[in-house]
Amino acid sequence: MTSEGSRIQRLQDCGGPSKPQLQHRIEILKKWDLMPGSRILEIGCGQGDCTLVLADLVGEHGHITAIDPAPLDYGAPMTLGEAQSQLKSGPYGNRITFHQANLQDFLDSGASEPLYDYAIFVHSVWYLPSVETLQSMLLSLRGRAKQLLLAEYVLDIRGDIAALPHMIAAISQAEFNSRGEHSFDRNDNIQSIISPEMIRTAAVHAGWEFQREEITEAAEGLEDGRWEVGRVLSKEYLERSESCASKRRQEFANALIEAVKVSRRVLGPQPKVKTLPTWQCSWV
Amino acid sequence: MTSEGSRIQRLQDCGGPSKPQLQHRIEILKKWDLMPGSRILEIGCGQGDCTLVLADLVGEHGHITAIDPAPLDYGAPMTLGEAQSQLKSGPYGNRITFHQANLQDFLDSGASEPLYDYAIFVHSVWYLPSVETLQSMLLSLRGRAKQLLLAEYVLDIRGDIAALPHMIAAISQAEFNSRGEHSFDRNDNIQSIISPEMIRTAAVHAGWEFQREEITEAAEGLEDGRWEVGRVLSKEYLERSESCASKRRQEFANALIEAVKVSRRVLGPQPKVKTLPTWQCSWV
Repeated sequence: MTSEGSRIQRLQDCGGPSKPQLQHRIEILKKWDLMPGSRILEIGCGQGDCTLVLADLVGEHGHITAIDPAPLDYGAPMTLGEAQSQLKSGPYGNRITFHQANLQDFLDSGASEPLYDYAIFVHSVWYLPSVETLQSMLLSLRGRAKQLLLAEYVLDIRGDIAALPHMIAAISQAEFNSRGEHSFDRNDNIQSIISPEMIRTAAVHAGWEFQREEITEAAEGLEDGRWEVGRVLSKEYLERSESCASKRRQEFANALIEAVKVSRRVLGPQPKVKTLPTWQCSWV
Repeated sequence: MTSEGSRIQRLQDCGGPSKPQLQHRIEILKKWDLMPGSRILEIGCGQGDCTLVLADLVGEHGHITAIDPAPLDYGAPMTLGEAQSQLKSGPYGNRITFHQANLQDFLDSGASEPLYDYAIFVHSVWYLPSVETLQSMLLSLRGRAKQLLLAEYVLDIRGDIAALPHMIAAISQAEFNSRGEHSFDRNDNIQSIISPEMIRTAAVHAGWEFQREEITEAAEGLEDGRWEVGRVLSKEYLERSESCASKRRQEFANALIEAVKVSRRVLGPQPKVKTLPTWQCSWV
């Protein structure tokens, strides 16, 4: 087994997610050359998939403070609370602290360290309602972390039509959640499709200096594309779309759902939907 | 010159549109095997690009009644009125009658014939505000035409990423125009992205019996994809998007504009944006 293969096996044994999920996060994080022994603030950790990989990468002298405002009973088949507890009781438990908090409250609390080596967002930006929210978070982080590292999907299939269903599914979910300030569905993994250009601009406005950006292709078998397509093609999703008050909005939403279906059908009788590429960027 | 080549030359000499526009319409219409001498009602004729090809195909004993509610001073560089006048004064003029009217008013007027051989929509469905509007038109046409023929773009790039910029541009325009019952921009060629599934359902509800459907690839060089992308990437379009009252809607619209840009950039330094395929269907 390669050293990476054994790393993945080790992390799966601690209750980590699927092999492609771990592989994907390792590929992203390795490009950032994190210093061993680093103290990291991870924003939007969810069930802790990325937290676990970070804990492995920083070594025994590093520490990950992982925050997420989502309720601990959120998520299936395992809830956030259950998944986090499992990691805490495993071999990496002492390198990780979880907090159920939003960023501002956490930074204002006594629980926050004065200065982290890195503030990291991995696939947590599209959960945010808007780039305005992101920008205020990046502003709060100024002076609280030496480096800012961010990775999120990008609406760019780069010539591979197997990723098109994921792209249209992302547009569809974001369209629903953009309808009103107060109408959104927490069950959508995609609340907004904030683009690299918008993130770059927000970071600069928040006082961060651009370092480096790159695109990382989704790891083989990464399930996210398939999951988001499944969500959009579910009965519940169609019913939600059809309950929209405006007929024109409803038709528009239905046309997007049909476009997801068609773009998947093109991939053949056993369609293998690919996950969108990830754009990752660093600032100091 | 082939017989088709000389047909296109002949139609261009009468003030017809570009070669790809004529080629595209000939390819669509030929699949329907229109009977020579037919009397046709064409709905949403615009400048008369399709009307001219129809007039050629039906021969000297046929006649095309072409209706469009748009103001005669609409369109650039030639207005609807100017383009229609040019065709009327040309060799096909006596086979064509233009009416500035919506369908219901026209059918109710003395100008309508009791029964047409064909009622035809070619690239006029996405100008409609909704499939509800289409359905009521199809209902009005029941008993007034022997056959219903309809051709419109479809959100299906069929594996060709050169058509992706057109697809996202169509989604972007339709998104803007779906925002409110009374807010739409007449300058968008795409008011809605009504899908084949929605059209099939509307036609059945209106009492039409499905005959045959097929996909026709855009003729080489057909400009529509490039035009729609140009519209979405124009300064005027961005300003309109940024004037949207809701921040979230604004960000969503901007993310789509950026996705159009990115999908075009992928095609290389001299991107050749392809036009989406056309879905065409017939009913009796």
